[in-house]
Amino acid sequence: MGAALGLSERTRGRTAPNPNVGAILVRDGIVVGRGWTQSGGRPHAEAMALAQAGAKSRGATCYVTLEPCAHVSPRGPACADLLAEAGVARVAIALGDPDPRTNGQGVATLRAAGIDVVEGLAESQARAAMAGFLTRQAKGRPFVTLKLATSLDGRIALPSGESRWITGPEARAHAHVERARHEAILVGRGTWESDRPGLDVRLPGLESRSPRRLVLSADGDIAHPADIAKLEAVDHVLVEGGAETAAAFLRENLVDRLLLYRAPILIGAGKSALGDIGLADLASAHGRWRLADTRMLGSDRLEVYASF
Amino acid sequence: MGAALGLSERTRGRTAPNPNVGAILVRDGIVVGRGWTQSGGRPHAEAMALAQAGAKSRGATCYVTLEPCAHVSPRGPACADLLAEAGVARVAIALGDPDPRTNGQGVATLRAAGIDVVEGLAESQARAAMAGFLTRQAKGRPFVTLKLATSLDGRIALPSGESRWITGPEARAHAHVERARHEAILVGRGTWESDRPGLDVRLPGLESRSPRRLVLSADGDIAHPADIAKLEAVDHVLVEGGAETAAAFLRENLVDRLLLYRAPILIGAGKSALGDIGLADLASAHGRWRLADTRMLGSDRLEVYASF
Repeated sequence: MGAALGLSERTRGRTAPNPNVGAILVRDGIVVGRGWTQSGGRPHAEAMALAQAGAKSRGATCYVTLEPCAHVSPRGPACADLLAEAGVARVAIALGDPDPRTNGQGVATLRAAGIDVVEGLAESQARAAMAGFLTRQAKGRPFVTLKLATSLDGRIALPSGESRWITGPEARAHAHVERARHEAILVGRGTWESDRPGLDVRLPGLESRSPRRLVLSADGDIAHPADIAKLEAVDHVLVEGGAETAAAFLRENLVDRLLLYRAPILIGAGKSALGDIGLADLASAHGRWRLADTRMLGSDRLEVYASF
Repeated sequence: MGAALGLSERTRGRTAPNPNVGAILVRDGIVVGRGWTQSGGRPHAEAMALAQAGAKSRGATCYVTLEPCAHVSPRGPACADLLAEAGVARVAIALGDPDPRTNGQGVATLRAAGIDVVEGLAESQARAAMAGFLTRQAKGRPFVTLKLATSLDGRIALPSGESRWITGPEARAHAHVERARHEAILVGRGTWESDRPGLDVRLPGLESRSPRRLVLSADGDIAHPADIAKLEAVDHVLVEGGAETAAAFLRENLVDRLLLYRAPILIGAGKSALGDIGLADLASAHGRWRLADTRMLGSDRLEVYASF
């Protein structure tokens, strides 16, 4: 299932409104097929893995990160039917599909065909891998990551506005990989007009993965943070600045994940990372974030916080 | 030597102007004496370990974190002489004593007495353990630690001034242990007058280790950061706030170590950790600090940065 989750990450940020699923077929201890949801949402992971395995699917075990779909669509057959037709013996599923067209029906179809089904394998990792799809299903809006790149004292620029560079090349490259995992990047009008940021993926081989650019402003792409819910085919939004835009999303409780890149420098007087987030008192600031991951990137440190 | 360094930490912040030294005597694989510089600077570590070992010192190996002193003082005999008289066979030394009264003379005395001497064992750890004494010897001023307790976005209070509490009880207890390792704590007049901080060590059994309190202001104990050089019997100063006092020490390049306690909260609008530190450009902010240690304290994270 770990390998299937790894495959699912290949198209994170490219499959909305479909989930980014990974699937792997194993027979007699040998991997006979691998698949992941393709850009745009089709083919599905299971269909790709089955096509690769061909006749070797018979009697194999399929590890798949989301319950196989049960509904026939104009874009393709139901994966539960495909698995049954191929003669797969067992299916291990990380997570049930909350989509009402499948929700339990996929498992029922497999079991009706005599397939042995195991559920809940690496479920929490699957939730993290498909956070965009799941947030859209549960909350009707994309999963939002806020990126901040600061000094140790929380500054994002000198008083002059100078901000290049606070973090080093390793941290900046990591931030570009993160961009490639989002359907859209959003900045405020101030950042857009003053920095004219490229907001593209400047990594060899990943240039084509540059996400859609959005500007938050009364006359921009998005007038209000909550309007991200209306975006079509966008399940992951990366908010990249500036301080007022970040604060607007936090004020509306619309940030699910915080990417904090910190350089080992002190700036003192300068521009703060966040504007007013509408905090009434310190007690209400606590219990909202937990450290989910941390690593060094050159001499900078990345911390990833997840919303409780 | 690791055990001797551990002993040397027992009186860090209590021995100025003497170094906090640790010593251990081992004979036939058995520890026969342990010593550390006592509060006020005497007896020395070696004298205490020799007194404990008595006749068992003969033929023993002494592990000592600093070169034994070579000068007789009205307060006691020279440790190099004591080791020779006791018939110690070998002395392992972490670090030479930069004090001109000893600097090499201690080793010469030991060798002249036929003692086998090894130098440089765990030298860098010894430098860290005796940073106060060494900074006083090298720069003529105490070793300065700046403590900051901030939110993830570098805030130390809400706009209202509310600052209790940003960090949790584990981080606050750790900060009290740090107080016990300093001869003096310093705050600015603003912090002194608005918060009336206790600045004492509120940990069971360590209440007597509360350091000297100093207020930085034109009519306070210290009018200018550089005046810490004039303090007698103070080799470690802990700067605890507020933002302008911290900035004043950073502006003068008088901070050797940064203790950064960070709570997993965002504050947004509020008071920043640092005032103007006189930075001309971002390039000059880099290359000054390296991450020396990090650990979790409850849900907070401590980072220790050392000045390059």
